[in-house]
Amino acid sequence: MRIIDLRSDTVTLPTEEMRKAMANAEVGDDVYGEDPTVKKLEEKAAQIMGKEAGLFVPTGTMGNQIAVMTHTKRGDEIILEEKAHIFYYEVGGIAALSGVQARTLKGYYGALDPSEVEKSIRTGDIHEPRTSLICLENTHNKAGGTVIPLEIMKQIKEIGEKYNIPIHLDGARIFNAATALRVDVKEIAKYADSVMFCLSKGLCAPVGSMLVGTKEWIERARRNRKRLGGGMRQAGILAAAGLIALEKMPDRLKEDHENARFLAEGLKEIPGIKVDMASIQTNIVFMDYEETGLTPDSFIAGLKKRGIKVNPGYPLVRMVTHLGINRDDINYTLQAIKEIVQGG
Amino acid sequence: MRIIDLRSDTVTLPTEEMRKAMANAEVGDDVYGEDPTVKKLEEKAAQIMGKEAGLFVPTGTMGNQIAVMTHTKRGDEIILEEKAHIFYYEVGGIAALSGVQARTLKGYYGALDPSEVEKSIRTGDIHEPRTSLICLENTHNKAGGTVIPLEIMKQIKEIGEKYNIPIHLDGARIFNAATALRVDVKEIAKYADSVMFCLSKGLCAPVGSMLVGTKEWIERARRNRKRLGGGMRQAGILAAAGLIALEKMPDRLKEDHENARFLAEGLKEIPGIKVDMASIQTNIVFMDYEETGLTPDSFIAGLKKRGIKVNPGYPLVRMVTHLGINRDDINYTLQAIKEIVQGG
Amino acid sequence: MRIIDLRSDTVTLPTEEMRKAMANAEVGDDVYGEDPTVKKLEEKAAQIMGKEAGLFVPTGTMGNQIAVMTHTKRGDEIILEEKAHIFYYEVGGIAALSGVQARTLKGYYGALDPSEVEKSIRTGDIHEPRTSLICLENTHNKAGGTVIPLEIMKQIKEIGEKYNIPIHLDGARIFNAATALRVDVKEIAKYADSVMFCLSKGLCAPVGSMLVGTKEWIERARRNRKRLGGGMRQAGILAAAGLIALEKMPDRLKEDHENARFLAEGLKEIPGIKVDMASIQTNIVFMDYEETGLTPDSFIAGLKKRGIKVNPGYPLVRMVTHLGINRDDINYTLQAIKEIVQGG
Amino acid sequence: MRIIDLRSDTVTLPTEEMRKAMANAEVGDDVYGEDPTVKKLEEKAAQIMGKEAGLFVPTGTMGNQIAVMTHTKRGDEIILEEKAHIFYYEVGGIAALSGVQARTLKGYYGALDPSEVEKSIRTGDIHEPRTSLICLENTHNKAGGTVIPLEIMKQIKEIGEKYNIPIHLDGARIFNAATALRVDVKEIAKYADSVMFCLSKGLCAPVGSMLVGTKEWIERARRNRKRLGGGMRQAGILAAAGLIALEKMPDRLKEDHENARFLAEGLKEIPGIKVDMASIQTNIVFMDYEETGLTPDSFIAGLKKRGIKVNPGYPLVRMVTHLGINRDDINYTLQAIKEIVQGG
Repeated sequence: MRIIDLRSDTVTLPTEEMRKAMANAEVGDDVYGEDPTVKKLEEKAAQIMGKEAGLFVPTGTMGNQIAVMTHTKRGDEIILEEKAHIFYYEVGGIAALSGVQARTLKGYYGALDPSEVEKSIRTGDIHEPRTSLICLENTHNKAGGTVIPLEIMKQIKEIGEKYNIPIHLDGARIFNAATALRVDVKEIAKYADSVMFCLSKGLCAPVGSMLVGTKEWIERARRNRKRLGGGMRQAGILAAAGLIALEKMPDRLKEDHENARFLAEGLKEIPGIKVDMASIQTNIVFMDYEETGLTPDSFIAGLKKRGIKVNPGYPLVRMVTHLGINRDDINYTLQAIKEIVQGG
Repeated sequence: MRIIDLRSDTVTLPTEEMRKAMANAEVGDDVYGEDPTVKKLEEKAAQIMGKEAGLFVPTGTMGNQIAVMTHTKRGDEIILEEKAHIFYYEVGGIAALSGVQARTLKGYYGALDPSEVEKSIRTGDIHEPRTSLICLENTHNKAGGTVIPLEIMKQIKEIGEKYNIPIHLDGARIFNAATALRVDVKEIAKYADSVMFCLSKGLCAPVGSMLVGTKEWIERARRNRKRLGGGMRQAGILAAAGLIALEKMPDRLKEDHENARFLAEGLKEIPGIKVDMASIQTNIVFMDYEETGLTPDSFIAGLKKRGIKVNPGYPLVRMVTHLGINRDDINYTLQAIKEIVQGG
Repeated sequence: MRIIDLRSDTVTLPTEEMRKAMANAEVGDDVYGEDPTVKKLEEKAAQIMGKEAGLFVPTGTMGNQIAVMTHTKRGDEIILEEKAHIFYYEVGGIAALSGVQARTLKGYYGALDPSEVEKSIRTGDIHEPRTSLICLENTHNKAGGTVIPLEIMKQIKEIGEKYNIPIHLDGARIFNAATALRVDVKEIAKYADSVMFCLSKGLCAPVGSMLVGTKEWIERARRNRKRLGGGMRQAGILAAAGLIALEKMPDRLKEDHENARFLAEGLKEIPGIKVDMASIQTNIVFMDYEETGLTPDSFIAGLKKRGIKVNPGYPLVRMVTHLGINRDDINYTLQAIKEIVQGG
Repeated sequence: MRIIDLRSDTVTLPTEEMRKAMANAEVGDDVYGEDPTVKKLEEKAAQIMGKEAGLFVPTGTMGNQIAVMTHTKRGDEIILEEKAHIFYYEVGGIAALSGVQARTLKGYYGALDPSEVEKSIRTGDIHEPRTSLICLENTHNKAGGTVIPLEIMKQIKEIGEKYNIPIHLDGARIFNAATALRVDVKEIAKYADSVMFCLSKGLCAPVGSMLVGTKEWIERARRNRKRLGGGMRQAGILAAAGLIALEKMPDRLKEDHENARFLAEGLKEIPGIKVDMASIQTNIVFMDYEETGLTPDSFIAGLKKRGIKVNPGYPLVRMVTHLGINRDDINYTLQAIKEIVQGG
C-alpha cells in the first residue's frame, strides 16, 4: 500500500539530483572555514535574502536558538506570537540556553498587532527585563501556514528601529510565504535583521537550515553555533543538497499550495468536517472533525488503515502538502475521509 | 507639608515596637542555623500557613525566584498569569536564573481560568518543554489587589495534583487576601505547595519575606537561597521585626481596605475619573483619569505640589493604602484631586 | 560555661552602639532610592574605597555574584584562584546564575602568579570562551587569611588593562589586608575595577556587604541586585549598623591579628600540632593535628566539651579571631588543646 | 603542490564507499524516529560500545554538551582534567548551556589521579555545589593523544559508584585508544556510564558523532539534543557514511599510529627539535621547536611554502596523522623541517 504522508513537509526525501550532488560534493573542514560547498551555499543564501552573510546550521531550531542567543543578553525579554515555533516547539531553549524571557502576544492568523508589540516593549524600569528582540514567523506554522502581511512586517520593523530593537524572522517556510505573496523573498527578508530559513521541509534537502544577517552578526552567530555543537566538519555533503534545494525547489511550491487548497475545499464539503478557509494560504491545512462525532482513535486509525498519515490532534488534525504528495494522493485522501466519516 | 505616600505599601516604616525588638534581638549566625530569632520566625511562619517549615529571605522577589528554582529543572515551562509579579516585575529572573520558560495566560481580575491552565499543561512531546510549576498570585498586584477566589485556587490545585505539578503561591499580600475573604490564611495556603509572603508591605516590617513548604523542599530552597546570596548572618535583627509584623499587623489590614474603598468611592464621584469598583477588594486602587483631559505631567505635578505621591502611569494611576495613611489623608487626597481636575 | 567561638568572624554580634543606631535609623524605601541611611552608607563606602559609587547588598556572596554578572556575558570565562571563595563556596553560582566558566589557577598563599594569569587569557579562537574577568581575593580565606602583595595586584591590574579585562576584588576581609599591609584600603582597591567587602565578619555588622565601582557599573549592578532578589526596602536599619562598622571597627582589627599570631605561636609549641607560620598574616589560623594521632571525632569532641568551637576538618582545623575573642580566650584554648593532646 | 595537512584528523575526507552509501541511503524523518539508516547506526554504535542505546549527533561537541546536560542539574559541579576538550575547547558551553561549574584537575598525560578525583568530590555542604559528574577523555587530545590506562579508568569508575556519580567518557578518539591498548572498545567503554565518540576524525565520516548509554538516559539525551538543535531530519544520509566508518575504519588506525611514531622519531633527531616520546601513543605528535631559535612566523611560513599545514602554536606545534597522510608524506615533512631548521 502506498503511504501518503501528510504529517509535515519535513518528511520530504532528497531528490535524485541532490543525492548525486552529495556523492560528488567537494568538501573540506568547515570549522576551519575550508569547505568550498558550504561557503558557496552561505554566499548564495545571503544573496538570495539580500543580506551580507550566511551560516549553515543543522536544523531550523538551532538557527533560531543561535539567533536569539546572538541578539540578546541573559535576563532580557523577547516578544513573540504565543504559538510561535521558537516559543512553542523548541523545548524551552530560549530560557534554558539564552536565559531570556518570552513575552508572548496573541496574533491574528499568526500576525502580531504592531500596536500591541509597541505597548509590550520594556525599556528599563529596575523591576523589568529589557526588551531586546522581536521575533516573527512567516509563514506561521501553528496558525496554519498563514502569511504575515508585508505591511505588518514593515510596521513592526519600524517599531524595532524606533526602539533600537532588532527583528528576527523565523522564515522556516519563507519561500512558501514569498510564493503566496508573489514577491521575491528579499521583499520579506528586508523587514528583518536576521532570517532563519530551512533547506529541508518544502525545499526537500535532507538536512539543514540557513541563518543570514550582517557580516558582523554572522561572525558572532558562528561562535554561538560552535557552542551549541553545530560546527560540523565536511558539511559540504549536506550543503550540496542545499544548493539544489535553493535553485530548483522554490518554484514548485505553488503546486503544494494548489494541492492544499484543493484538499481544503474537498474537506469542507464532507459533512462534519470544518476548515477555516481564511487560513488556507500555503501548504498547511488544519481540519476540525469534532462534529463528525468520531473519536481521535477511530479517526486516526481509519486513516492509518488506508495508508494515510496526518499530524494528529483533537479536534484539529494538521495535513501538509509537499513534493511527495500529488493530486491523486489528495483525491485518495478525500475519498478515504469521506468513507471514515460515513462510518466505513 | 505632610507627605502622603500612596505609591505602595512597601513604603511603610517599622513601628516603634519593631525598632525596640530589633535593638534587643537575640541573634546568632543563621548560615550555621544558630540565630534563635530567625528560627522562631521560621517556625511561626510555617505554623501560621499550615506548612512544615519556613525560610526567611531578604525580599519577596528572592522568595519567588527561590521557589521557581527549587520546583523546576532548566528548560521546563511554568504557567503564570500574564501580569503576575514573577513574570512582569522580577527582571526576567525566572529565565536568567532558573532557565525556565513562562507560559502566560490572561486572567480575570488576576484569576487564571482553571480549564485554560489544564489545556496549557505540556507533558513531554519531544518538541515541547515540560510544565513543572503553576504560579498563582493572591492578592494579584497588577490586577488591582484583587482576590483569587478560593474555589479557583482549589480547582487549580486539583489540576496540579492530577498532573503531578506543584503550585507556588506568590502571597506577597496573602494577609490582605485572607482579610478580604474573612478566612484564616491557612485556608488560602492549603491550595499551594509553597507560599511566599512578605513581612514588609502591609505588615510594616522593614525588610524580609518568608517562604514556606514541606521540610524537604525548604531544605533544598535553603541551598538555593545561599546560591542567590540570601544567606544572611545575624538576620535575627530583621526577624525580630518580622515576628511583630506577624503578630500585630494582620488584624489592622481591614482598615487599609476600608480606606481604599472610601478612596475609590470618592474618586469615582469626581468628574472624568473612572474606577473599576469590581477591582476594589483590598488596599489597592487604580484610577483612570484619561477623561479629565489632564496630561500625566500636570496631574502628577499637581499631586506632588500638594504632598501626594502616587505610582504614576497613564491613563492608570495606582494608589495603595497602608499604616501610614489615615482617613484624613484620604479626604485630603480626594479634595486635592478634585481641585486638580477642576483646574486648580 | 563560656563559649569560645573560633569558627569564623561571621559569628560576631552587633555592638550596643550598632543596636542603638538600628533602633533609631532614619529609613525609606531603598528600591525607590529613598533610604537616606543606605544612601549615606553607599557614599561613604565608595569614598573609603576611592570609587565613584557603592551598592549595599545583603551578603558577600550576592555582592560577588552581582559583580560577576555585571562584568560578563554568558559563555565567558573568568580567572580565579582555585580555592577562591567565589569558586569554592558560592554553590556554583557563577555557572548557574551567570553562565560563565571558571578558569582556576593554583595560587601561592592565595596569590595568583601574574604570568600564569596572562598565559590563561583567551581572546577568541572559535573553540574557546573569551576571558572577560579576573577575580582576586584579599585576604584569601582558604589560604589562611593571607594577604595578596600589592605588587602582585598591580601586575595583574596591568595585565587586565593590557587585555581590556576588568579586575574584581573579593575583599570580604579587605580591612584585614589593609591592617596587615599598614596601608589605606584605597591602596588595595585601586588595583581593582570593582570591590566587594563585608560589613559583617570582622567589622561586626549583623548583615550586609558593599559593592563599589564606577557610577555606570553600579547602576547596572543595581539591576542585577534586583534580579537576584537583593533589592530590600527599609534597608537603612542594616545600613545604620554598617556605618558604625565602617567608622569604628577597622582600627581594632590589629588586635584580632595579634591574637591570631599569639594563638598560632602557642599552638606550634604543642607536640603533634603543626602551623605554617608563613600563613599567619591576619586573623585566621589553620592548625594541622594529624601527628597528634587524635581522630577528628575525639579532637573536636574534646574542644566542644570545653566550650570551644572551631571550623572542623581533618587534618586541618580553622580558627578565626574576632571581637568576641580576647587574650584570655586564647590562653584558655591553648591550655585546652594541650590537655586534649596529652590525652585529657 | 601536494598539500600535506597535518593539522588534525578532522580534515579527513569521506571515502568513495561512503559517498556511494550516502547517495543511496534509505532515509526518513529522524525526529519522528523513522530514519532506518540512523536507527541502524544507533543500534550498531550501542552494540559496539556494549551499551543499551545510541544517539546520532551532528558533532562531538554537541554530544559532550548533551551528556553534561543530561547527567547534571544547574548549579552542580563536574570534575574534568584541566585541558579536557569539554572544558577547554567547547566555548564555555557547560556553564552557558547547562549552568554547571567545572572543577579542573591537572592530569598526568591526560589521566586524572583517582585519589585527587575522590578528594575533589563535594557532597552537599550548603556553601558548595554538589559534584554530579566526572568526565574523562581517552585518548586525551591536548595531552598529545595519550591513552588513559584502563586501571585508572577502573579506579575512577569505582569512585563514581561509591559516591553515586556517573562517568562520562569523551571518547572522540576512543578507537585510537583501543588500538593502542589492543583491546576491544567495550573494554574502555565499560568504565563509563555514557560515551561520546566521533565518526569523523580518524574514522573519516564527513559529519557526525555518537552518544551511547542506557536506554532511559538516551531518551532524555534525545530531548536535550532537540533543545540544542541537533534533531536533524533525513540524517540517514550522514548515518550511511557513519556505518561504513564504524565497519571499515577502526582497523586502519594502527597505520596512523605507526606514522605518528615514525614522524616523532624522525623529529627528535633534528637539532633543536624536542619531542616527548612518552606522549607518542596514538596519532598525535607535539614537537617543541623553541631551541631551533626559529620564530613562529618563519617556521610556519617555511612549512606552508612546502605545502605542509600544522596546528600552529609556540613553542609547541601539533601534527596529526590520518587516512590522508602516508609514509611518503611523513618523509617529505621530516625533510622539510630539517631544511627549515638548517635555515633553508
